[in-house]
Amino acid sequence: MVAAVAAASCVIGVDLGGTKLLAGVVDEGLGVHHRATRQANGLEPADLIDACVAAVEEARAAAPGEVRAVGFGIPCLMDQRTGRGVMAVNLPLADVPFRDLMTERLGLPVIVDNDANCAAVAEHRLGAAQGASEAVVLTIGTGIGGGLILRGEVYRGAIGAAAELGHMVVDLDGPRCQGNCPNRGCLEAVASGTALGREATRLAREQPDSGLGRALASGRAITGPLVTELAHDGDEAAIEAIALIGRNLGVGIANYANIFNPEVVVIGGGVIGAGELLLAPARDEMLRRALRPSRDEVRVVAARFGTEAGMIGAAAMALGAE
Amino acid sequence: MVAAVAAASCVIGVDLGGTKLLAGVVDEGLGVHHRATRQANGLEPADLIDACVAAVEEARAAAPGEVRAVGFGIPCLMDQRTGRGVMAVNLPLADVPFRDLMTERLGLPVIVDNDANCAAVAEHRLGAAQGASEAVVLTIGTGIGGGLILRGEVYRGAIGAAAELGHMVVDLDGPRCQGNCPNRGCLEAVASGTALGREATRLAREQPDSGLGRALASGRAITGPLVTELAHDGDEAAIEAIALIGRNLGVGIANYANIFNPEVVVIGGGVIGAGELLLAPARDEMLRRALRPSRDEVRVVAARFGTEAGMIGAAAMALGAE
Repeated sequence: MVAAVAAASCVIGVDLGGTKLLAGVVDEGLGVHHRATRQANGLEPADLIDACVAAVEEARAAAPGEVRAVGFGIPCLMDQRTGRGVMAVNLPLADVPFRDLMTERLGLPVIVDNDANCAAVAEHRLGAAQGASEAVVLTIGTGIGGGLILRGEVYRGAIGAAAELGHMVVDLDGPRCQGNCPNRGCLEAVASGTALGREATRLAREQPDSGLGRALASGRAITGPLVTELAHDGDEAAIEAIALIGRNLGVGIANYANIFNPEVVVIGGGVIGAGELLLAPARDEMLRRALRPSRDEVRVVAARFGTEAGMIGAAAMALGAE
Repeated sequence: MVAAVAAASCVIGVDLGGTKLLAGVVDEGLGVHHRATRQANGLEPADLIDACVAAVEEARAAAPGEVRAVGFGIPCLMDQRTGRGVMAVNLPLADVPFRDLMTERLGLPVIVDNDANCAAVAEHRLGAAQGASEAVVLTIGTGIGGGLILRGEVYRGAIGAAAELGHMVVDLDGPRCQGNCPNRGCLEAVASGTALGREATRLAREQPDSGLGRALASGRAITGPLVTELAHDGDEAAIEAIALIGRNLGVGIANYANIFNPEVVVIGGGVIGAGELLLAPARDEMLRRALRPSRDEVRVVAARFGTEAGMIGAAAMALGAE
């Protein structure tokens, strides 16, 4: 009886994304037992908190045993001294004392971390960075999130706001960055899904006879997923748009190779759906720019975990594994 | 007698620069007791090794007590697995098994590290980064060296080649970088002493009536030290050249603020002779570009140690302090 309870001991991981939230019951082997989702976009802070509580309670009711703790990955710069969100691009979490609120509402120990840090933990524990001491994880979707594993542990900086790896300028006078970022020419501004859509739209106009051009003429929105689909179908313009973003990404990877001398750089997020169409030009550009020996030592690979990386990593943190 | 020997126990720190080498006898409080210098530029590898040995032996003979170990800071990307230099921009050290050679020749324990890592250790132990857990140190001279203190310790990456902080691209299509760096638009290419000389020469041509312009017309080489001297004398063109380099530096500091969320960024090397003429525009640019809360938490300050930082830091490493 005691052994059975111990074996079923679990945590809940929650990934709070800009559009939806995903809660999962996760065991000590990082197996996922139940998933609960809620919409997150357009909510006021109080409703967002209620949605989090409801998803966790749904998951908790379905858990095979005692829930020990809850981990949240949120798309927000955290002040780890206070558990308070400081700057959130896509959700109304700035200045919300998220950790304290959740602890009170749930009556369980709560850990909160940046969602990209959570994804890095998932990749390090069981994914593409497994076994690495030094790893850089970039999660490329609408924006670019970053997570760092340094000396085998998540790196958070002085107060928990480190690893904003998408907000490294690679083009001084480049395009304005997004959301609340005051900067221009950030990696996010030139190598995100948003940048892919922008560059693909430009190529669609320049090449009206291409698949991209015909998609634009038919009134379709030129989004990252559409570009990826057309590229996999062999459209040269779509392939070129992805390669352009890949080369920009490669500049960022060269920087991180020189800065961290990592064993591996892991690329996740929606844009990695392009696979080697993105990674091959990124590797080429990195090899042209980075210094020896780092450029020869680093592997540049796709993430193992897709849309569940944040949730699984948040659970791993709640398990006290990191 | 035993107490006297213990009190006098010391190490030798050596900073092997591109033009000269400096060896110093250093006690456990990082006090410097004797200095020995040798020329280093233009030497073949064997002669360079001989010069190192001669300087260390001179320092050892002058030491007040037993010399326990020797620390070398060398301007070279190291493979710490082998103690072998992998890539050196200014000295013939690539593929030299430096640590083993020195251990054999000197009959003493030898540690070897990148010279900028050594400078970071000196600033962290007793200088501008004292007490910080997370610190970024940039040494700006002909090039830009970097050292990282993360979680209170020097960060070296997977095999010892990390913290090449001057070789972070901030301008995708910017000027070619120097020496053996294959890259373009690196921070070193736009914010080093070399970049200062280049930009000041351009301004001297554009403003022939300025102090810079008259210096150029009189046939003087427009070097970093000359620009700094003219700027301190109030020449507006020289001040503008330094401010331009400062703003470029600020882009790099914004990146490092976002990546590391450090408590302090320390600026050393010859170019910091410009003081606030460099640091004020660098801080302004950083504040315009970096994210909250990191930009509000980071101090950007001048290094405490000047030309002896590398030597003192190498000694600190030899003392086993890091």
